[in-house]
Amino acid sequence: MQLLQTTDKDFSVKFKTLVSDRREVTVDVSGTVREILADVKVRGDAAVKDYTSRFDRNNLQSLHLSETFIAEHATQCPADVLAALEFAAERIVAFHEKQLPPDIGYTDTVGVKLGLNWVALSQVGIYVPGGRASYPSSLLMNALPAKIAGVERIVMTVPMPGGEINPAVLAAAQVAGVTEIYGIGGAQAIAALAYGTESIAPVDKIVGPGNAYVAEAKRQVFGTVGIDSIAGPSEILVVADGQNNPDWIAWDLLSQAEHDPSAQSILITDSEIFAQQVIKAVEKILADLPTTKVASASWQKLCSRHSGQRFSREYTTA
Amino acid sequence: MQLLQTTDKDFSVKFKTLVSDRREVTVDVSGTVREILADVKVRGDAAVKDYTSRFDRNNLQSLHLSETFIAEHATQCPADVLAALEFAAERIVAFHEKQLPPDIGYTDTVGVKLGLNWVALSQVGIYVPGGRASYPSSLLMNALPAKIAGVERIVMTVPMPGGEINPAVLAAAQVAGVTEIYGIGGAQAIAALAYGTESIAPVDKIVGPGNAYVAEAKRQVFGTVGIDSIAGPSEILVVADGQNNPDWIAWDLLSQAEHDPSAQSILITDSEIFAQQVIKAVEKILADLPTTKVASASWQKLCSRHSGQRFSREYTTA
Repeated sequence: MQLLQTTDKDFSVKFKTLVSDRREVTVDVSGTVREILADVKVRGDAAVKDYTSRFDRNNLQSLHLSETFIAEHATQCPADVLAALEFAAERIVAFHEKQLPPDIGYTDTVGVKLGLNWVALSQVGIYVPGGRASYPSSLLMNALPAKIAGVERIVMTVPMPGGEINPAVLAAAQVAGVTEIYGIGGAQAIAALAYGTESIAPVDKIVGPGNAYVAEAKRQVFGTVGIDSIAGPSEILVVADGQNNPDWIAWDLLSQAEHDPSAQSILITDSEIFAQQVIKAVEKILADLPTTKVASASWQKLCSRHSGQRFSREYTTA
Repeated sequence: MQLLQTTDKDFSVKFKTLVSDRREVTVDVSGTVREILADVKVRGDAAVKDYTSRFDRNNLQSLHLSETFIAEHATQCPADVLAALEFAAERIVAFHEKQLPPDIGYTDTVGVKLGLNWVALSQVGIYVPGGRASYPSSLLMNALPAKIAGVERIVMTVPMPGGEINPAVLAAAQVAGVTEIYGIGGAQAIAALAYGTESIAPVDKIVGPGNAYVAEAKRQVFGTVGIDSIAGPSEILVVADGQNNPDWIAWDLLSQAEHDPSAQSILITDSEIFAQQVIKAVEKILADLPTTKVASASWQKLCSRHSGQRFSREYTTA
């Protein structure tokens, strides 16, 4: 945690270092990923099973999770979590329905018909992290917009380290209307979705967050399929003055810090007192957070900057 | 040129081979591109100048093209071409203004304010090919939507092989409101736009077509900046029955064939007579086309397929 003040004479150098340092921690995994992609392209299911056995310690007979398996595990999702997922799904649908773009169609002054029609992709793949990060809510936010757009085949891959899977992820998949689930992850899952294997038909676009290997695999298959974006380490920037609730701001900052040890959370504020309150609130929460180890690693800096505009002094916690 | 009929018993194999073969011709340039990107990242302008000297045989004192240089060369654009560019620009603006997406903002049933505001990127880079392909129209189609969206800094790079530049490209840049032009191309131009150099400030997103090196460079910098897409070899698929003008269809097919020797043009039709008329029309045009060498290399196959639906027999020229 660093606290910088814009009145410090080396503020701009320190702030710049803070922000760009984070980008340097990424290990170059492109060679390893390239090999995995090439192997899956050639050997298909056999290669995916080998990597799944090696990286996830999971010997899958079938990559595809059966209806029975999904149903059995999804029912283990606690009722209150399921209710929360259903409530979230309703709200996500309501929001994204408003995003549906209108078609364009008109005849110009010289009589030429011009237009643009939106057509949904027929099949998309959603990567859902297992292991450290298990986000049923991200699954809803990725799958439901596809459903609303009219995508017919929504495929999901989720790694099952040691054969384990979070029941809430499978429950969320049911709520969101995912049509196929495969118990695989990493670059091998991205390769299977992009190129197809004997048991997995290829998709048109791959979305969803993943670790550095998944991000690099998406970068490499981009062009063969569409992708949403390269998800780097998470980051959050909160701009808040002293009239805010320090606990809420602390939770907002930690919401990203817990994703990844190289995640970055920054608060810009004009009140040093408020900055100190937020720091205390974060430390209090960190003491109890199940993800405290990761979140603490991210939570190491606090800095401030001066804008001279709306905030006469700004503090940035990072 | 290949003519396939859906009634051929090996039709589906041949058709599949035809379509996927094209994707195999791409040479792997990723290693070379990686080196160029890394070099520009470290050495900046000096590296860009070295590559420009080597690949474009052009020893630039300054990467930036001066107002005077642009004005002098743009005036060499023939008056009828300039008039056509201005006419095209008007039509492009009229179309893309209709695409401006509306913001979303509402308060839900429990009183939570939700919204989505569209904000233009502040700076974009447009890659414009020089050499074999010089497309002032593509420049208009890339720059004007940025202008309409509200992008303030629109940077363009265009290689000048042997110091040459197409006056129509500079005239189009003026018509489109491009704010800076650099006389560079290839992976080195993409690197300069993505990472910045001493004389070129980095941009947020890079768009525009280029050769295999440019496409691979865009893939590699994706994540550091946004990109539009990986432009592969061009392709066009025309579905037309015998009631069409064979000359028009021939021009449509050649419009993409001329881009690249590995471009692919396919016609699907239910009339063998029409397919033969289009082939004749293409051959007649090819005899006179300035880009005949490239277009002829692409024009080598013609095939057909059977849908059993609207077209009882379909011919595919590729």
